Amino acid sequence: MTTTETDWSKTETPTTAEGWVSRAAEVSALLAVDAVTRDKEGKTPYAEVRLLKDSGLVTLLGPTEHGGGGQEWPTAYRVVREIAAADGSIGQLLGYHYLWFWAARLVGTPEQITAVEELATTNRLFFGGAVNPRDSDVTITDEGDTIVYNGRKSFSTGSRVSDLTVLEGVLEGTDKHVFAIVPSDIPGLTFHDDWDNIGQRLTESGGVTIDGVRVDWASAAGYVDKTFTPRVYNTLNVPTIQLVFVNFYLGIARGALETARTYTREKSRSWLHGGYERAVDEPYVLDVYGDLTSKLWAVEALADRVAEEALVIHRAPDRVTERERGEHEVRVAAVKARATDVALEITAGVFEVTGARATASSEGLDRFWRNVRTHTLHDPVAYKRREVGVFVLRDEIPEPTWYS
Amino acid sequence: MTTTETDWSKTETPTTAEGWVSRAAEVSALLAVDAVTRDKEGKTPYAEVRLLKDSGLVTLLGPTEHGGGGQEWPTAYRVVREIAAADGSIGQLLGYHYLWFWAARLVGTPEQITAVEELATTNRLFFGGAVNPRDSDVTITDEGDTIVYNGRKSFSTGSRVSDLTVLEGVLEGTDKHVFAIVPSDIPGLTFHDDWDNIGQRLTESGGVTIDGVRVDWASAAGYVDKTFTPRVYNTLNVPTIQLVFVNFYLGIARGALETARTYTREKSRSWLHGGYERAVDEPYVLDVYGDLTSKLWAVEALADRVAEEALVIHRAPDRVTERERGEHEVRVAAVKARATDVALEITAGVFEVTGARATASSEGLDRFWRNVRTHTLHDPVAYKRREVGVFVLRDEIPEPTWYS
Amino acid sequence: MTTTETDWSKTETPTTAEGWVSRAAEVSALLAVDAVTRDKEGKTPYAEVRLLKDSGLVTLLGPTEHGGGGQEWPTAYRVVREIAAADGSIGQLLGYHYLWFWAARLVGTPEQITAVEELATTNRLFFGGAVNPRDSDVTITDEGDTIVYNGRKSFSTGSRVSDLTVLEGVLEGTDKHVFAIVPSDIPGLTFHDDWDNIGQRLTESGGVTIDGVRVDWASAAGYVDKTFTPRVYNTLNVPTIQLVFVNFYLGIARGALETARTYTREKSRSWLHGGYERAVDEPYVLDVYGDLTSKLWAVEALADRVAEEALVIHRAPDRVTERERGEHEVRVAAVKARATDVALEITAGVFEVTGARATASSEGLDRFWRNVRTHTLHDPVAYKRREVGVFVLRDEIPEPTWYS
Amino acid sequence: MTTTETDWSKTETPTTAEGWVSRAAEVSALLAVDAVTRDKEGKTPYAEVRLLKDSGLVTLLGPTEHGGGGQEWPTAYRVVREIAAADGSIGQLLGYHYLWFWAARLVGTPEQITAVEELATTNRLFFGGAVNPRDSDVTITDEGDTIVYNGRKSFSTGSRVSDLTVLEGVLEGTDKHVFAIVPSDIPGLTFHDDWDNIGQRLTESGGVTIDGVRVDWASAAGYVDKTFTPRVYNTLNVPTIQLVFVNFYLGIARGALETARTYTREKSRSWLHGGYERAVDEPYVLDVYGDLTSKLWAVEALADRVAEEALVIHRAPDRVTERERGEHEVRVAAVKARATDVALEITAGVFEVTGARATASSEGLDRFWRNVRTHTLHDPVAYKRREVGVFVLRDEIPEPTWYS
Repeated sequence: MTTTETDWSKTETPTTAEGWVSRAAEVSALLAVDAVTRDKEGKTPYAEVRLLKDSGLVTLLGPTEHGGGGQEWPTAYRVVREIAAADGSIGQLLGYHYLWFWAARLVGTPEQITAVEELATTNRLFFGGAVNPRDSDVTITDEGDTIVYNGRKSFSTGSRVSDLTVLEGVLEGTDKHVFAIVPSDIPGLTFHDDWDNIGQRLTESGGVTIDGVRVDWASAAGYVDKTFTPRVYNTLNVPTIQLVFVNFYLGIARGALETARTYTREKSRSWLHGGYERAVDEPYVLDVYGDLTSKLWAVEALADRVAEEALVIHRAPDRVTERERGEHEVRVAAVKARATDVALEITAGVFEVTGARATASSEGLDRFWRNVRTHTLHDPVAYKRREVGVFVLRDEIPEPTWYS
Repeated sequence: MTTTETDWSKTETPTTAEGWVSRAAEVSALLAVDAVTRDKEGKTPYAEVRLLKDSGLVTLLGPTEHGGGGQEWPTAYRVVREIAAADGSIGQLLGYHYLWFWAARLVGTPEQITAVEELATTNRLFFGGAVNPRDSDVTITDEGDTIVYNGRKSFSTGSRVSDLTVLEGVLEGTDKHVFAIVPSDIPGLTFHDDWDNIGQRLTESGGVTIDGVRVDWASAAGYVDKTFTPRVYNTLNVPTIQLVFVNFYLGIARGALETARTYTREKSRSWLHGGYERAVDEPYVLDVYGDLTSKLWAVEALADRVAEEALVIHRAPDRVTERERGEHEVRVAAVKARATDVALEITAGVFEVTGARATASSEGLDRFWRNVRTHTLHDPVAYKRREVGVFVLRDEIPEPTWYS
Repeated sequence: MTTTETDWSKTETPTTAEGWVSRAAEVSALLAVDAVTRDKEGKTPYAEVRLLKDSGLVTLLGPTEHGGGGQEWPTAYRVVREIAAADGSIGQLLGYHYLWFWAARLVGTPEQITAVEELATTNRLFFGGAVNPRDSDVTITDEGDTIVYNGRKSFSTGSRVSDLTVLEGVLEGTDKHVFAIVPSDIPGLTFHDDWDNIGQRLTESGGVTIDGVRVDWASAAGYVDKTFTPRVYNTLNVPTIQLVFVNFYLGIARGALETARTYTREKSRSWLHGGYERAVDEPYVLDVYGDLTSKLWAVEALADRVAEEALVIHRAPDRVTERERGEHEVRVAAVKARATDVALEITAGVFEVTGARATASSEGLDRFWRNVRTHTLHDPVAYKRREVGVFVLRDEIPEPTWYS
Repeated sequence: MTTTETDWSKTETPTTAEGWVSRAAEVSALLAVDAVTRDKEGKTPYAEVRLLKDSGLVTLLGPTEHGGGGQEWPTAYRVVREIAAADGSIGQLLGYHYLWFWAARLVGTPEQITAVEELATTNRLFFGGAVNPRDSDVTITDEGDTIVYNGRKSFSTGSRVSDLTVLEGVLEGTDKHVFAIVPSDIPGLTFHDDWDNIGQRLTESGGVTIDGVRVDWASAAGYVDKTFTPRVYNTLNVPTIQLVFVNFYLGIARGALETARTYTREKSRSWLHGGYERAVDEPYVLDVYGDLTSKLWAVEALADRVAEEALVIHRAPDRVTERERGEHEVRVAAVKARATDVALEITAGVFEVTGARATASSEGLDRFWRNVRTHTLHDPVAYKRREVGVFVLRDEIPEPTWYS
């Protein structure tokens, strides 16, 4: 990222959703400048996370009394989309951060919620997480007042750039998952720095070893006297994070379309034997842009609507029923399926309308596809379609899980 | 339609959007009962239009002081969708009716608006129209206080079931289009009853001959002293009717999906060699339902959002700028393109999950596809994609026309 | 069909594959003349089957010494495609006829083969069949020298227009399927004439009741001394008939494309606001024709190649191994999957390039889609893709069944 | 490439098409071993071209009397496919080599043909080319007995690894294109080594400066006494090279599918909540493999058939008519369109069935998509569809050009 000249401390903190989205657009413009280089170099994005903090975006969901933005999820999703349009990795980091920032609300006790939100908002702390319940290899031992985490996770997004890390494991001899927030530099936490994938290269999603990390029982999210009181809202982390996914896919797709548009306007040549002087007049070029844009707009509209539907739930977390939760998850599954298809189609398809020279490595136009292709495999989209199908056809809602 | 036992005069008139949509759902359920038979017989839908009147749906957009619903376009679109789910033809008839009911607002003078809305609302009149500017073969001669229409139109939707008909023609020696509303049984208007197409069979969209139909200049929509004062809002008939199209396509698609669902649940057999007992457990069946439903939801969300965007314009018709109009038309073009694709895909695709026996003529499951296939050709969808492409790529808005 | 003036007895019998395909093209041209009317009226196609006989097409596979064409399957498939381009129903009838004509070879003893081929070729007999092992409701009782069929089949293609009917049932107390050929007018065989589906309307595929139809054990195909000697070749009826399906789908698709082409050339209007004078110059029209044609050509090439692969097997029926049979069936499954997709896409897509007026019932342009849509549901194409997937991924060949 | 232990001089030269394809498969297996590393490192493929020479593949089309394979184009295309399955770049290099090896036949005089084929076959020379008539910036001056090339080309595939380079330019003051073959190390030829694109990274397709390269008029392909005698066959370079493209796209697609298959079998995990133990049993995985494989088989069949159609032309180059040439080009355009679509779909789609971990950079599974995505932009595929559309709809054949 080019060193930003903006002295964010002198700018006024936005107070409306639109204001925050504009702020995100400013940050996005800064991130876009050297996104291609950054992707190639694969450096740990300290400066970029710094920017997210300085611009206030990290505390978007934080209470206004502690200097946070006091915004709700629909705004957060739009901000994620905005950032991801410039840099998919940073969009993902920010989206995951929001989820973990919110995790206290989803799983914690009232006291934990208050404490975490004050701490993180006041200090503009950035969250990472070693939460990937597909691996069942983090175990927790109960040692009286404290619990001790041991094991490893294959993927821990945000690791090295985070201030706080959310740990997750299973209490020995039980099937209880326990979440806790620890400082990312706590002894016993070793990040492997081994994320080397074709896309989302800057997400610092490498493995982590957890070696005797001790946490007070008081910090075990949602536990009171070592007992976890489940409520339906507890199980909303999956739809909430899946909507994060959806929104950075859509952001990346829009980034691809806008980057391609600039290229077509400024660099593409019309076809030698086609009879048009400018690429922007080629019928097939117009057709592709029209088609891809229409597809994107439809999924964006669904994403926004589903985010609004979630709002009702997030605002009254104790009134949500299992059925409501289930129907919401189905809607999220649907938009996940659409966002996946459309983001893949757009990021692969833009080449058709930029032309051969746009494959130069220096253009970096392939990063959008690589980013979407990589993360959309997080969990098989076929099972999302299935979830919707089961609902429609058998009127059954999905069983909540901790992962996807 | 089975004779409805509902005595609508005894039901309370809805006062909210949701109330009207529920009312539409009741009507839709009645229409669904014999939709297959009705489609086969192709009888003029007098009873069905009667039902639209009795249930109050025809005056949905009419002023409450005259007994109308006082609703706005987003509700109208949802009502159209609801009706079209049961019967695409009736959905189209109602949607066109709404447009023509609204035409006075789009083109008329304040006095004309007041007069038309009072007349039509108080008497629950049904509109049809011979407005298809692709045919340039209706000419108007100026005879002093009156103008005289002569010519023919190939398509005049609603003809025989309407109380009022909107005429359109070009004033001789000029390129001025003049719209006027006349009683459908006015002498000189001859409906040919020659609509025999593969879909939307009950829309009474046959040709009409206009033989010396006289109209007062005072009734020439938007004309004062024989002069038409154009404003941007005048040119909003195309996006407004195109959104009508979109919504009955989506209604038909949903109708197909719901009809198929019932069939799959109740009649489909699982595959002989597949290892599943019930069709509703077949992985490929679930996948198709999940996929088609997700696609429908996305376009519905976009349709609703674009309808909301239009609302701003309809509420302040004199403040709309050319640019705003143009951007809105582009959004409409996008949702038209998506609705076309998705409605075709769904209505053709449902057979895949109902199976061979669902092709029995008695099931009538093909009517959804025939309906969508027929009307989506109203104007080439390729030009809608192009319109979006031109906007995105060249930042140009479409030039307003009277037709598509 | 217009009464054909051709006196086929005066034309020379073709002696080459190309000759037979030309002959089929002549017949196809005759069938095309009133295909739309015929489809609408749904009359039993006696005249059309007469034409297939007179032109010699029915004995294409028959031995030359008895006056047959002496051709092999690749020619038969091309002939089916040719006929189906004009009339999907007649193409299906002819294709099924070929399969049943060939059934003796697939299942019979050498004596039965000789007898059936001489009888059918010399007399130009037309085959129908009540063979649909999905219904397990035809039972056979062994009465010493004869067996007796009792039960019903839901679908018996060709019924009323056939001279011979292939029966199939399960021998009581066993799981042995027994096939036999009987005169279609044998007492005890009652055709229900209840085929009323949206497509392939003239295939006479209604139900049949079999009430005490007696057959000599000697006519039980492949049985010697009441014992059936299975060989791999016996189980080739499924791939053989599935290739028949493929070829009439492809024929119908080509018919749709060619009919549309004529329409676009002669009747379609270019778009009002598009700037092109002729529809045949519209970029989107050219694009669609190019795309659909390319897709058709690819599947035709695969269909021809798979037919060639089958030839090796049909020429040396006793040398085929289970593995060879299995790999062949996988190839057939693949082309079935492609033919299904592409035929559906073409027959639905041609409307896009003919325009609104092409939906007039009098054009009958929807019959192609209705035909393909109806028959492609014969068995779920998802299981064909699965068969290919299982082969590719697990290196397993499909288990032979009697049905699909 | 791992140093091959094969001492090719001790193996027998294949004498049949199948033999050559087997030979190509052996070479392909060697190339596959370190294809991922090679792609990452982007080193000039000297060793790989050496292997193509040692194995005899470079002289596949050369006369047997000089030690060549004496094969025809259908074999060459299959060999290209085989090589491209392991390494798309090497497949392209070999395919281009074949075209330039053949260029003498397409454009040269009988004497030139004989001389070039003997020279290149005997010495197993490898061809590159600076032939990209989209750039009109190579001019030729006539200096009596010699002509002199000056200018630059943006893309010259094979540059540094070639022994001979085909030059192309326009004779000053005329519109005559003149082709000539020169040693790649001739003074005046400077390769820029600036090919750095996202795919086909080893094709050495960088720019070249041509600074006063002198060639005898006698070497000007097809010129006799400074006069070029055009015949239809001269204009077949475009369809011939476009089929080369098609075949390496198909090879790459097959490579992707086979690489993915191995991954799915050996490394993919079934979905956590899906109920299947092995990934190879997941219904959606089987469906995707079945679908993609079927699509590939169809295009392969068309590619083979079109190659056979070309054979007739290549065997009788002086009998080909303009119409025959045109119809052939249309067929090539069709298979190009299909190969493009299907190769893109397969190479992007395989990730769906390998899962998240397959995006590790070390797997290199994205190289297939990058390779296809890069080269399929060589010329806009929309114009290929258009070419087919124009032929089908307007019965017009494409006008021959020197480039695409």
